Amino acid sequence: MSIATLSSPGTIGVGLVGSGFMGRAHAQAFRAVGGLFDLPLRPRLSMLADTTMDGATRAAASLGFEHACDDWRELVADPNVDLVAITTPNALHAPIALAALAAGKHVYCEKPLSVTLDEATRMCAAARAAGTVTAVGFNYLANPMLQVAREIVASGEIGEITFYRGIHAEDFMADPAAPFSWRCRPDQAGGALADIGSHALSMARFLLGDVERVFASLDTIHHRRPDPARPGTMLPVTIDDSAHMLLRFHDRPLTAHVCTTWLASGRDMQLGFEIAGTRGGLSFSQERFNELRLYRAGEAPGRSGFRTLHAGPAHGDYGAFCPAPGHQIGFGDLKTIEVARLLGAIAGHGTPIVDFDSAAMIAALSDAARRSSLEERWISLP
Amino acid sequence: MSIATLSSPGTIGVGLVGSGFMGRAHAQAFRAVGGLFDLPLRPRLSMLADTTMDGATRAAASLGFEHACDDWRELVADPNVDLVAITTPNALHAPIALAALAAGKHVYCEKPLSVTLDEATRMCAAARAAGTVTAVGFNYLANPMLQVAREIVASGEIGEITFYRGIHAEDFMADPAAPFSWRCRPDQAGGALADIGSHALSMARFLLGDVERVFASLDTIHHRRPDPARPGTMLPVTIDDSAHMLLRFHDRPLTAHVCTTWLASGRDMQLGFEIAGTRGGLSFSQERFNELRLYRAGEAPGRSGFRTLHAGPAHGDYGAFCPAPGHQIGFGDLKTIEVARLLGAIAGHGTPIVDFDSAAMIAALSDAARRSSLEERWISLP
Amino acid sequence: MSIATLSSPGTIGVGLVGSGFMGRAHAQAFRAVGGLFDLPLRPRLSMLADTTMDGATRAAASLGFEHACDDWRELVADPNVDLVAITTPNALHAPIALAALAAGKHVYCEKPLSVTLDEATRMCAAARAAGTVTAVGFNYLANPMLQVAREIVASGEIGEITFYRGIHAEDFMADPAAPFSWRCRPDQAGGALADIGSHALSMARFLLGDVERVFASLDTIHHRRPDPARPGTMLPVTIDDSAHMLLRFHDRPLTAHVCTTWLASGRDMQLGFEIAGTRGGLSFSQERFNELRLYRAGEAPGRSGFRTLHAGPAHGDYGAFCPAPGHQIGFGDLKTIEVARLLGAIAGHGTPIVDFDSAAMIAALSDAARRSSLEERWISLP
Amino acid sequence: MSIATLSSPGTIGVGLVGSGFMGRAHAQAFRAVGGLFDLPLRPRLSMLADTTMDGATRAAASLGFEHACDDWRELVADPNVDLVAITTPNALHAPIALAALAAGKHVYCEKPLSVTLDEATRMCAAARAAGTVTAVGFNYLANPMLQVAREIVASGEIGEITFYRGIHAEDFMADPAAPFSWRCRPDQAGGALADIGSHALSMARFLLGDVERVFASLDTIHHRRPDPARPGTMLPVTIDDSAHMLLRFHDRPLTAHVCTTWLASGRDMQLGFEIAGTRGGLSFSQERFNELRLYRAGEAPGRSGFRTLHAGPAHGDYGAFCPAPGHQIGFGDLKTIEVARLLGAIAGHGTPIVDFDSAAMIAALSDAARRSSLEERWISLP
Repeated sequence: MSIATLSSPGTIGVGLVGSGFMGRAHAQAFRAVGGLFDLPLRPRLSMLADTTMDGATRAAASLGFEHACDDWRELVADPNVDLVAITTPNALHAPIALAALAAGKHVYCEKPLSVTLDEATRMCAAARAAGTVTAVGFNYLANPMLQVAREIVASGEIGEITFYRGIHAEDFMADPAAPFSWRCRPDQAGGALADIGSHALSMARFLLGDVERVFASLDTIHHRRPDPARPGTMLPVTIDDSAHMLLRFHDRPLTAHVCTTWLASGRDMQLGFEIAGTRGGLSFSQERFNELRLYRAGEAPGRSGFRTLHAGPAHGDYGAFCPAPGHQIGFGDLKTIEVARLLGAIAGHGTPIVDFDSAAMIAALSDAARRSSLEERWISLP
Repeated sequence: MSIATLSSPGTIGVGLVGSGFMGRAHAQAFRAVGGLFDLPLRPRLSMLADTTMDGATRAAASLGFEHACDDWRELVADPNVDLVAITTPNALHAPIALAALAAGKHVYCEKPLSVTLDEATRMCAAARAAGTVTAVGFNYLANPMLQVAREIVASGEIGEITFYRGIHAEDFMADPAAPFSWRCRPDQAGGALADIGSHALSMARFLLGDVERVFASLDTIHHRRPDPARPGTMLPVTIDDSAHMLLRFHDRPLTAHVCTTWLASGRDMQLGFEIAGTRGGLSFSQERFNELRLYRAGEAPGRSGFRTLHAGPAHGDYGAFCPAPGHQIGFGDLKTIEVARLLGAIAGHGTPIVDFDSAAMIAALSDAARRSSLEERWISLP
Repeated sequence: MSIATLSSPGTIGVGLVGSGFMGRAHAQAFRAVGGLFDLPLRPRLSMLADTTMDGATRAAASLGFEHACDDWRELVADPNVDLVAITTPNALHAPIALAALAAGKHVYCEKPLSVTLDEATRMCAAARAAGTVTAVGFNYLANPMLQVAREIVASGEIGEITFYRGIHAEDFMADPAAPFSWRCRPDQAGGALADIGSHALSMARFLLGDVERVFASLDTIHHRRPDPARPGTMLPVTIDDSAHMLLRFHDRPLTAHVCTTWLASGRDMQLGFEIAGTRGGLSFSQERFNELRLYRAGEAPGRSGFRTLHAGPAHGDYGAFCPAPGHQIGFGDLKTIEVARLLGAIAGHGTPIVDFDSAAMIAALSDAARRSSLEERWISLP
Repeated sequence: MSIATLSSPGTIGVGLVGSGFMGRAHAQAFRAVGGLFDLPLRPRLSMLADTTMDGATRAAASLGFEHACDDWRELVADPNVDLVAITTPNALHAPIALAALAAGKHVYCEKPLSVTLDEATRMCAAARAAGTVTAVGFNYLANPMLQVAREIVASGEIGEITFYRGIHAEDFMADPAAPFSWRCRPDQAGGALADIGSHALSMARFLLGDVERVFASLDTIHHRRPDPARPGTMLPVTIDDSAHMLLRFHDRPLTAHVCTTWLASGRDMQLGFEIAGTRGGLSFSQERFNELRLYRAGEAPGRSGFRTLHAGPAHGDYGAFCPAPGHQIGFGDLKTIEVARLLGAIAGHGTPIVDFDSAAMIAALSDAARRSSLEERWISLP
């Protein structure tokens, strides 16, 4: 049970910082969650902060928040705000979260947790000191089919795990003429590994547990990108376009491969994995995230093969959305599940899907991968 | 522009009858729509009616309605209710809709429109008399990928349409021991054709236009089902388990095939079609409804093949949910699009995806199919 | 056991008429079969006939035949020829087969059996009179995965069959500018139904048994095609571009749908079916003919789904080609299996996959479908 | 043009060593090739050698060889044998090939080339000294769709290549109770990397060219396997069950990942790759080897997606088998293409798909991977 005291019994005041795509996704999830999940706490959309008063006011009206402001410090200080949701540019994650934790708030932060590992470490310490609940928005892990995959792995249903191959590939930087942006800046948590590879790493960790050692090779394929501010000129790029990582785990015999690239022309969400066990296998891609492919050894001769499971009420939180299989959930619903798990944890039931500590381990793993690539050697995780 | 006057400018009072799965889906859509779509009208969740006061009160609290009642007549009569959403058992659709229209309300009714064709005809007449906006919840037609499919067909992008094969197959009655239920009763719009085949028919009509003639064969495969009220005894079944229909259209040279069954073991949502045109083709299944497969003739030798389009901002209303492709929308989002189109129509912009007249034509088509099967001849639609 | 006497014990002299694609496919199958199957009879490639001596001689040399001739009558009369394989234009099937049967030969004829139903009837009578073995090349039925499908249906492994939907769609006539050819001529067994629809019909019959009644709608979509002999002029087309058939079977409760079209842009071999039973289902497409999708009811909750079987030694004749799964067989291998079954039957073991009688029933079914379409009524098969 | 003199002009005498699955596959390919390809040289099946005279005689009869013997040395010495095909256990590859080359024969050897890198080096030297043509049976590279993939990569059709991920996964050793066999013995070229990983490596090299550096991690997951000779006892296993390799290439900016495992439960032929380029992408799996998935950038908005190409006459050697698309080739046909390319090379046209030098480079790469895994560092190829 969290030790924080809520502003009103039975409800929790939500303060949202940012109203871009992710801000709106948070807001929609907080609005939807009460009608779908039977929660001990109902969110009250208390305050929305953005960079201008005008923008904040319009967003608050559109998204159903009671108040708006143009300074996140005001939001953090507001006694009606019990939970601070952070959807700002990455560099602001740490300052806002640290302030919110210092004020005794629960914090729900978009990934990445921070832009430096040092910040992440301080955020975890602050969370421990505050004793409040934290969550980081890794989105895809909230998928009921992934919950099932994790249970299948953990229960031994497919035997001992012997092989893993994971990926997150997209194509939004595939064109060498794609302009330089914050995604190309190391001080903004740029690079394919931090931006999308962290999803593939979090998925591997979600399924297989803590990583012990990593070997990596990060590639900068396009060393220059057009400067959008000065047409005709180029800016140098030093961050990674792709990364390959070999991972070894505590108490598992295998080496796993996890890779990422934002150069994969034609891919818009190839986030997935293949797992083999001694008695079966699993295969998943976010491209069809309402499906999970399962193989089980031991079928009659001529009758074995991967079966395609369709999401249904037998799978984790799917039943909160529909009592029948085959209807499918969407990305917004993944955020709603993430929020439901967070609110449950605040009320003392269960844990968030990814908290600050877990997110910091992903950050540490990315950091070790970067060092491994530079030093061309295996790096042990602490 | 609708001639109805709303209870308050800029908002529209919603009254929801029923709070089962579909009732909740409506409520969630009304709550979500304002944060996603830039609408001239914002829904106000005014009143929820259910069969008991206790159930209605709890549902209203959970779903965010201001008031609850246990008599839909009260809801229909409430001046704060501008739009009546009907998610009751099928036999109540007509009485509630007729009362709501008589009271000058807009009406949003779940499919099927009614349990008899006669009722449907009266509902259409009442809607014309009321001059309000009507919509019927065919759900799947709200899919952005279907909007794209319709545009591709209509624009001639794949040439003249020469072939169509459609289906809606599920398996919830595949087991002969599945008990007798309202779905087995003709007076409740039972039977596979009315229950799910209507989706396949509406899809064919959505894509190809009005049907001129139909030939059909309806199969009752399981003539008895267990009586759930009296264990050990069976009830006779007369409705159809499967239906095959051949359709001819105004101004199209082809005969289309549309079929339905609820006996298709292993299928939970095989609602789809294959279309061929003189210069290309389309293929779709609701099992993967964020995808559309497109073929276009005229590619370089050795480079032609069906391509798999993933839903993205270039496709209809997808962009309201996410600015990037690959994130996918869910069933709930389809209802939100349906509601957005309805609210737009009420505000004078565009039309609902399916209105009472369109739904009545689907009902007339089902009715003609039933007659064709009995009389073993082609039946012309009026 | 066949009553025919072979020219030499242990071998069988093969005479091949025609050396186009199908002639070569026959020759390759006869050459390959001995190295793959343990047969009581080994084929001896005795004589090849074609329309010119020059062409026949070159083909005989390339394909390994001992003799060549330019008159099929000479081939039929040759005492070294025990088995006559017919791969000529369709109109010659009947004359050659009748002559060969009159000479006491076994006959292996490409589909269609003949260009008129009357011819087919006479060919069946002649075969009965000759007492030799006949086979017709329906190719796709030789697939080990179809053998498995048939066993699954027949054994009740997926319960009682309640639903069937079959198709053969290709696109080689999709372009309205595709020229008039023999395929457009009724006297050459032209039209999509005879040309490719017969495969879909044979598959339905292979799996479900004899058809009792048929209702059909045949569409001529393109009523004129360019005359290749006179550029700029068009020839009228009367044969069908597409056909939809509803089928009812002896001792089965369902109505099946089987359709065909050669207008399906983007499809080069969509020959397949979906079957539902009370305890499972099957799905197959020749586009991936080394696979069969199987669903079985009764799995643990959350673990059910269609499984994809890959062809392997547990499936019918696959093991003749490879002792390991996953290697896949090709179209040529299907012909080799067809030939192996034919040679086995000649040696007294088993039956050909499709004999003249079966092929004649397919022809009768197509004929009934044509009549049904004209008369707009159900037609009973004899 | 090869400098070897053939035993008879226009034909080439084939001597086959071994008559297991691969021996038969060779024999069938040599028998089939003449009827499919228009070759300057026709194979004459001259002699078959196996370990016993009885077995050799039966195999020769079944496969159509003129002579049989029980000593490969006799076959190598026979003046009627121009080409020696080696399908023995791996340890015999080198001795037979070296003897055949010393006798001035052309040599066609199954993979792996040898069991040690040293042998491979000597075999390449002997081939250069003999001046005859050599080929190694990597099977899958003969696929027309791979030929197309290579052309697409080489021509720049999908831009500069920026990402590659390859795999060969099967499951025949997935069960820890699978017995110890020659595949577990280092002196028999055992281990997943040598056995099947070599296919994934050869594919990467086929598509991207020579490898410059490799980093690898080889996993021995199951350290003991049952001794089939002594029930109840176990033998220690030291070879690899899985291997992950990172590869860097001459003149390419990317790091590629290639992995292999024979523990992948449910996989019988997951040999494939994903390639990204700046203007497109490719994806392939041997599980559906008559397909290639191609993405090309630059399509109209909302119309882009991976397209599935089906093998057809526009793709490499497919047309030798069938003039129409959609019919598909099988594993045996891949061997026939491999043989056609070999015979062409012997006649002075083109080159074999993989010769001894290329196979030796794959062996060197595997060897470097093994060292890299032990020494935990990048290894440069010579």
